[in-house]
Amino acid sequence: MPSDCLFCRIVAGELPSSQIYADDDVVAIRDIAPQAPTHVLLLARKHVASVRELGPEQAGLMDRLFAAGAKLAEQEGVAADGYRLVVNVGRNGGQTVDHLHVHMLGGRPMTWPPG
Amino acid sequence: MPSDCLFCRIVAGELPSSQIYADDDVVAIRDIAPQAPTHVLLLARKHVASVRELGPEQAGLMDRLFAAGAKLAEQEGVAADGYRLVVNVGRNGGQTVDHLHVHMLGGRPMTWPPG
Repeated sequence: MPSDCLFCRIVAGELPSSQIYADDDVVAIRDIAPQAPTHVLLLARKHVASVRELGPEQAGLMDRLFAAGAKLAEQEGVAADGYRLVVNVGRNGGQTVDHLHVHMLGGRPMTWPPG
Repeated sequence: MPSDCLFCRIVAGELPSSQIYADDDVVAIRDIAPQAPTHVLLLARKHVASVRELGPEQAGLMDRLFAAGAKLAEQEGVAADGYRLVVNVGRNGGQTVDHLHVHMLGGRPMTWPPG
């Protein structure tokens, strides 16, 4: 765990966050700059920089991040109308924290293109 | 496999597509209305309507879709600069085909919000 990683520090409880869910692999918080009425971040509990670094030791992690996203969409009441899940990778992708996370946005119609 | 599912028919080769990758679980094609210089669709080979329908029988599927996305980003030459992976769920998410797929967009800076 890089000690200067923002999301590692949030997962460890060293920094405040509006945590709404946690399991063995995933911690979910609200985005501090929400882009939709519901905007949740699903963080990998263990540090992985991005999907580019996923290997055998992270088997099942994307499954669990998306399962948590679907579960939270239900919990937040946006599942029936629909929502968007987004993973940013690198500079062109708009990744601002180098710790794997999935954005879940709902509560409004999402437009196309996706940014 | 619903016989009227567009992506099932593409996976089965019943409809033409610009297929660029295939493995046991994933078929990748180019989006017919690209929203970025590189815009690839990663289709689940077996029919699943959306992430809302994922269960134990699809264990590992999200992992494999994202692994294929990362691999194709390298192959397409957009990995170093970055890219965005998007999963639309339902009407508000902008899901237009009820067959699980992941969009991979790169080759330009993606903006925020993601739609």
